[in-house]
Amino acid sequence: MLRVGYPASISADLLRDFPEEVELIPVSDKMDHDVEIDVWIPDPYATPAMRAWPHLHGVKLVLSMMAGTEWIPGTVGPHVTICNAHGAHNISTAEWTLTAILATLKYFPLYLDIQKSGIWKRRFEASAHYAKITGDTRPFHPEVMQEELTGKTVLLVGYGAIGKEIERMLAPFNVKMLRVARSARTAPDVHAVAALEQLLPEAEVVVLILPSTAETKGLMGKRQLALMRQGALLVNAARGPIVDTDALVEALQLGRIRAAIDVTDPEPLPVGHPLWSCPNLLITPHIGGSSPQFAPRALRTAADELRRYMKGEPLKNVVQAAI
Amino acid sequence: MLRVGYPASISADLLRDFPEEVELIPVSDKMDHDVEIDVWIPDPYATPAMRAWPHLHGVKLVLSMMAGTEWIPGTVGPHVTICNAHGAHNISTAEWTLTAILATLKYFPLYLDIQKSGIWKRRFEASAHYAKITGDTRPFHPEVMQEELTGKTVLLVGYGAIGKEIERMLAPFNVKMLRVARSARTAPDVHAVAALEQLLPEAEVVVLILPSTAETKGLMGKRQLALMRQGALLVNAARGPIVDTDALVEALQLGRIRAAIDVTDPEPLPVGHPLWSCPNLLITPHIGGSSPQFAPRALRTAADELRRYMKGEPLKNVVQAAI
Repeated sequence: MLRVGYPASISADLLRDFPEEVELIPVSDKMDHDVEIDVWIPDPYATPAMRAWPHLHGVKLVLSMMAGTEWIPGTVGPHVTICNAHGAHNISTAEWTLTAILATLKYFPLYLDIQKSGIWKRRFEASAHYAKITGDTRPFHPEVMQEELTGKTVLLVGYGAIGKEIERMLAPFNVKMLRVARSARTAPDVHAVAALEQLLPEAEVVVLILPSTAETKGLMGKRQLALMRQGALLVNAARGPIVDTDALVEALQLGRIRAAIDVTDPEPLPVGHPLWSCPNLLITPHIGGSSPQFAPRALRTAADELRRYMKGEPLKNVVQAAI
Repeated sequence: MLRVGYPASISADLLRDFPEEVELIPVSDKMDHDVEIDVWIPDPYATPAMRAWPHLHGVKLVLSMMAGTEWIPGTVGPHVTICNAHGAHNISTAEWTLTAILATLKYFPLYLDIQKSGIWKRRFEASAHYAKITGDTRPFHPEVMQEELTGKTVLLVGYGAIGKEIERMLAPFNVKMLRVARSARTAPDVHAVAALEQLLPEAEVVVLILPSTAETKGLMGKRQLALMRQGALLVNAARGPIVDTDALVEALQLGRIRAAIDVTDPEPLPVGHPLWSCPNLLITPHIGGSSPQFAPRALRTAADELRRYMKGEPLKNVVQAAI
């Protein structure tokens, strides 16, 4: 019987869609014994999963609950097939992106700060408050405190499944959409990544939603950030290393751009890191993909993949084929 | 020549669409002399506008830059025609509503608090942080910290132009939409306000976007709030008096519901008011309708109305006909 290891941290209830002909074995990062399994569903968090790995033997297939699987090949080696949970994060990540864009354009961080002060402030007072907390003392038109997303130009850097979800959620705002991906396409128009520097000056919002690879590392460096418009918003819903952190800190400290990021490099962001105190920055601690619907969706995807594996059918979401 | 008074606080540039055959006269709340005008465009803020009124003579028509005109009839009396700036706030108010819903469901106030602490916290730590700042010590599933809007049931209370804009912006999230308005309609289904109490228990998000009138005062009282689901979100994008403030404070303090409000009763909310310290509440200081696009839009609407007035055509956005 096929032995499938699953994270002891999740409720076994969530495995009810799994084929009956497998043996389900909880795997904990606190195990003091070794275990023989054929298929491994690692803990969605890399740290406990990597702690569990040395206790596992016989693994031929890894079914990740995540879209990003960076840590897995280096841990399990090249002789194991790895599948990701394609699609499980699409909606939650796209919703996070919309929230991050809207919250920034509507200055919600500022208004939450005002709420905490317990003093009702109108727009012109809010503007003074803004100057105080950011150190930005340029004259500020009070109406600017609530920008509209409607009609803005948005550049999607990455046009996979999540990028398309983001575009779908942006549709009612009649934005002008620009798209960049690894290779150019038409219907809709997608530019090759070589066009990035030419498109950056056009966008008021730049959304990073592309995989973290050797090629995308540092894609948004000092030079690219300098090409963004004054006050434009950079949203990183992808992975920290795609942005050069030092260049981002500098651009924020100079008041050149704004940013909303769910991921950082390094991650977790250490105590005292300069990003923590940058103005016009919203940080969430890598929670964009999470949702109460995430685990059920990811495990349904894993169950489908497992069924294909058992029937000898081609797997659907392979990110590394075993050699 | 027709004399049109406009707020001295706005740039005269914004009046470039006005007919050439009128005399434009800036009106300030700091005037120490009286002025004769035929048409008055009051300051968008009630306080300076009401201060200016005693200095104005001969006003026959008021063209408000706002959608809400509550203070105007009581100030100018029944012998003046009043038009509002129908439509000028639709997009900004609908965008504010989307932002308020998403920011609450994604727990952005919590994550901003965590960002301020300068410590990267993962979901389970965030959950403990949440318990600490809200006093809500019920066991909390970490994944609940990022809810999805997708698939939720949303009740729109009010189905005018802004309500329809909100529905349009909610469309990509595949919400189940319930609608209540003064009178029932079909295509789409709109229930009469009498159905409110029957619909409240079905909704996960309740959006108030209806005019403030004698009939809507206290529409959401203790009894209606008690009919909302545990943890459901009340969004007030309309006017403060539509919600019974004491009942709202009680429901929030008991952890029964969540709320996001751009308006309060009283407004401005005084220092020390219990709403300031309620948990699970987001307050913005009546900025939902504002936008850099607001003044140009409202003044284009006023210019169109003025042209109709000069030609003797019927006015379009009359909220009070002169008697």
